Amino acid sequence: MAQVAFIGLGTMGYPMAGHLARQFETLVWNRTASKAQAHAQQFGSRAVADLKATTQAEFIFTCLPTSVEVESVVEQVLPALKPGTVWIDCTSGDPNHSRRIARRLQEAGCDFLDAPVSGGKAGAEAGTLTVMVGGNRDTFHRALPAIQAFAGKVFHVGDVGAGHAVKAVNNMLLAIALLSAAEGLVTLVKQGVDPAIALEVINVSSGRSFSTEVHFPERVLTREFPNTFSLALLAKDARIAVSMAREAYVPVPLMQLAAEMFEMAKQQIGGDVDHTAVVKLIEAWAGVEIAPKGG
Amino acid sequence: MAQVAFIGLGTMGYPMAGHLARQFETLVWNRTASKAQAHAQQFGSRAVADLKATTQAEFIFTCLPTSVEVESVVEQVLPALKPGTVWIDCTSGDPNHSRRIARRLQEAGCDFLDAPVSGGKAGAEAGTLTVMVGGNRDTFHRALPAIQAFAGKVFHVGDVGAGHAVKAVNNMLLAIALLSAAEGLVTLVKQGVDPAIALEVINVSSGRSFSTEVHFPERVLTREFPNTFSLALLAKDARIAVSMAREAYVPVPLMQLAAEMFEMAKQQIGGDVDHTAVVKLIEAWAGVEIAPKGG
Amino acid sequence: MAQVAFIGLGTMGYPMAGHLARQFETLVWNRTASKAQAHAQQFGSRAVADLKATTQAEFIFTCLPTSVEVESVVEQVLPALKPGTVWIDCTSGDPNHSRRIARRLQEAGCDFLDAPVSGGKAGAEAGTLTVMVGGNRDTFHRALPAIQAFAGKVFHVGDVGAGHAVKAVNNMLLAIALLSAAEGLVTLVKQGVDPAIALEVINVSSGRSFSTEVHFPERVLTREFPNTFSLALLAKDARIAVSMAREAYVPVPLMQLAAEMFEMAKQQIGGDVDHTAVVKLIEAWAGVEIAPKGG
Amino acid sequence: MAQVAFIGLGTMGYPMAGHLARQFETLVWNRTASKAQAHAQQFGSRAVADLKATTQAEFIFTCLPTSVEVESVVEQVLPALKPGTVWIDCTSGDPNHSRRIARRLQEAGCDFLDAPVSGGKAGAEAGTLTVMVGGNRDTFHRALPAIQAFAGKVFHVGDVGAGHAVKAVNNMLLAIALLSAAEGLVTLVKQGVDPAIALEVINVSSGRSFSTEVHFPERVLTREFPNTFSLALLAKDARIAVSMAREAYVPVPLMQLAAEMFEMAKQQIGGDVDHTAVVKLIEAWAGVEIAPKGG
Repeated sequence: MAQVAFIGLGTMGYPMAGHLARQFETLVWNRTASKAQAHAQQFGSRAVADLKATTQAEFIFTCLPTSVEVESVVEQVLPALKPGTVWIDCTSGDPNHSRRIARRLQEAGCDFLDAPVSGGKAGAEAGTLTVMVGGNRDTFHRALPAIQAFAGKVFHVGDVGAGHAVKAVNNMLLAIALLSAAEGLVTLVKQGVDPAIALEVINVSSGRSFSTEVHFPERVLTREFPNTFSLALLAKDARIAVSMAREAYVPVPLMQLAAEMFEMAKQQIGGDVDHTAVVKLIEAWAGVEIAPKGG
Repeated sequence: MAQVAFIGLGTMGYPMAGHLARQFETLVWNRTASKAQAHAQQFGSRAVADLKATTQAEFIFTCLPTSVEVESVVEQVLPALKPGTVWIDCTSGDPNHSRRIARRLQEAGCDFLDAPVSGGKAGAEAGTLTVMVGGNRDTFHRALPAIQAFAGKVFHVGDVGAGHAVKAVNNMLLAIALLSAAEGLVTLVKQGVDPAIALEVINVSSGRSFSTEVHFPERVLTREFPNTFSLALLAKDARIAVSMAREAYVPVPLMQLAAEMFEMAKQQIGGDVDHTAVVKLIEAWAGVEIAPKGG
Repeated sequence: MAQVAFIGLGTMGYPMAGHLARQFETLVWNRTASKAQAHAQQFGSRAVADLKATTQAEFIFTCLPTSVEVESVVEQVLPALKPGTVWIDCTSGDPNHSRRIARRLQEAGCDFLDAPVSGGKAGAEAGTLTVMVGGNRDTFHRALPAIQAFAGKVFHVGDVGAGHAVKAVNNMLLAIALLSAAEGLVTLVKQGVDPAIALEVINVSSGRSFSTEVHFPERVLTREFPNTFSLALLAKDARIAVSMAREAYVPVPLMQLAAEMFEMAKQQIGGDVDHTAVVKLIEAWAGVEIAPKGG
Repeated sequence: MAQVAFIGLGTMGYPMAGHLARQFETLVWNRTASKAQAHAQQFGSRAVADLKATTQAEFIFTCLPTSVEVESVVEQVLPALKPGTVWIDCTSGDPNHSRRIARRLQEAGCDFLDAPVSGGKAGAEAGTLTVMVGGNRDTFHRALPAIQAFAGKVFHVGDVGAGHAVKAVNNMLLAIALLSAAEGLVTLVKQGVDPAIALEVINVSSGRSFSTEVHFPERVLTREFPNTFSLALLAKDARIAVSMAREAYVPVPLMQLAAEMFEMAKQQIGGDVDHTAVVKLIEAWAGVEIAPKGG
């Protein structure tokens, strides 16, 4: 019997499944089958053509665009699932969807963990992703060795949905950091300050964030905006975060405004560009670019 | 002739002037004279009772609450100033005020640098502050050895006012990071997630900031909110940042909203508490506290 | 056979059912039965103790706090419903709920109209309410004579859910008008302007709204805030409006912020007061009251 | 001696000065002199080529784009002013500028009233403008007969600056009403509701405002946006309103956000279009137009 299966070989899933294949007998399935075959060749995994064949595994991983696709895959596979299977969803999903999926799996005697990751393409390739896991603690410990195949740090953050909740909030903080740094930097450009120097200062001061330390120097100042994680997907995570807050009647005015700004950006900049390209919305309003002087 | 003078021995100024006194003959003046005398005793500086006596120095430093106090001090001292004196203002001031002060000093043949600092009380005591300097490049190089007495890194960021501009934006980014992390964490608390664990995850993920790495673990989770930098002073810096943006007709919706939230906090929480206590505004709206579970 | 039934004799429903009883044989049901008996005595309606007894009517009206209560009542009555019955929901409800309720009724051969009203307690008593109706056009025309019993103007605004959608947006505009007028008036009070005079001017100028013309003179300046429609219910309508926008990926930054401000007000002022008391949130932030000078 | 002078014959000033000329001996001055000559011919006023010639009048009116132009005109004319002259500024100006202008005039023994108007081009032509006057009460009564030449209602709203303050807030409420109605209507369009019908309903309900009653039917639904008052000028008034609030440390989150949205619109739509064209910003974000169905 195969030990693990991996569904969804995108930018993140492809290398994650590669790390699993080094340690476990691994089945891989992808909507575009050729990608699964390439994976088999590169990492020694086994490509399966039929989604249902993944049910031979003890641990089934998903890494898909949204919880909608996960739900659809679960429903297709459900009749064939063996009791005791653990479903580990690495999608940046929606806690409410996850709780619904978990209930469906439980009816079939299966367990669910939401296990979204942080660290980007680089972290996936290096196998050093941060993983935030929601679900039953015993199930978590059972699945931990498999998860550790692609992880730097693994955290059990609470019940089903908690992993997705923490991921959504993390990404919302990233979204706000991107937007606010852009607002601050266009303000400085208008004052005649070189944004490259301003970033150097901020990055050894109290205003620094992952975004000012990594995104702005590597993606914005260079004007390259390499597309590793789309603006539309970060907008989706922002929506999940504000939706949790609203369901709980929690006022989060900055998060709400940032979520709106990502929707504006989707209309004005497009959703298919890198998430860091959201700074172009702020630049368009300001009428200036965040580019180094004489650069 | 004394080499440097320091006006304003507050939380930051006191240790900064201490570092100067180790390398330079240093005059110190403080509104409450006893503090200057204590400084003299501790660091071997020379306390002067008359503000005008500071004009014996080649470099006069100020570190005061706002540019209003700096302007007032400059006007009192102006008639006694010797041409060639360099005034170095370490206040988190207002670029417009600074440009006005610089013009006044120029009429007396003196130079002005705005040189606000970042790094807090700890950085001031260790002499490792980040200093962002605006003003003439030659003046900057003349003053650099004195500034380095209390600095880790020193940056020349542009013309007069640029130092204050960068500082205001840095602090605005800090203000937004504080508020948005609070919004995100109360959302997670409502989902049953332990905020201590959520912070651990965020701090190895893309949502991290100085605020989540330092402020939340040390000041918020502990519920200690030690008062090292007041909420009212951060609100003032936020006002400077949005005022620069508005003068330049630059839309900065997140910065504007954050500035309003700091004014709300001043009314609801009070301005005299530590700036990190602004999270209590968000907590009051949510009806929960950001405290570790079982803590 | 009775012609109409009315479920929910609250502030609005009680007089609305009264107008119906003048023209139609009318059954009335209320959770607190004594209110139904009082209605029967006052208007000659017939009080029924069993909710299912309302199914004798051709037209069943509901006027309840939210769509949640409507859905619950529909489910209880559904098994007893006769095909051809028209359900007319005057609740300020949620379009999504309404569409779900309509589908359930359709399975039983019944029709649904969402028919929320505007005009407040005074309009309900005078029988001059504005009614905005969503649903099938033929059903609308069949129900129109009954609806006109309590209406000034009746509009067919679209398919099922459209009535609730228009009502939610109308109330959101009211919410924003209340908040923004409060913001403007505290600003003027701080400038020393008498808010009573400012309102007189605004009400013959381009800044006027229903809120400045009616609410501020009658409820705010008098400091009476008579509780005819609760802050919590207007907050609920605001939530419906922003939820429609978000489902459609439409950025509505002012609506989103206003919805958050109503949640803040529920925490700080309480939800059980009149909706106009939301101005106290703005007053608390400003530290002044919107009261006539020397009043 | 001429009784009144009028400086600034724009869209508003031209007809206002016309009404004055029917009752008073009236001097007119305009930057483009031909307009003054046309006025003289049409209304029997007297065109003067030299700005200083206006000082022959007892009452000098200004109606200019902003307080900056008023200040400049006052400074040019000041040396020639006779003590006792009353300067009546109908510009939608800035209270702080007005107080500065008033002090300058007072040094010359002259009085100042800020007297901005509401009612648009139509009101100016009909002589039915609403006038909100700030300044000394005796001066107000002295000037009242002249002001009434073009007014429907005249209000004394407080000391110097109060007129401009009330006008700025009125226009801010208009700005918010425009933006929020646009947000609400695009939300309804996305729900399939005809915005023309939605407006009919709102205009007999509690969400109505001057903007939904007049602007949307006449300017937006028709897609005509006739340019009677520019977007840039309303943006300027919005800036005056939020600047008053900020100076007074009053949090006004909706006003601040609306001010930012007008700046965004200036960048994206342009400032020279009619102020109602700001709805195109909201439409662009939503990807739909507010146009009647089948219209």
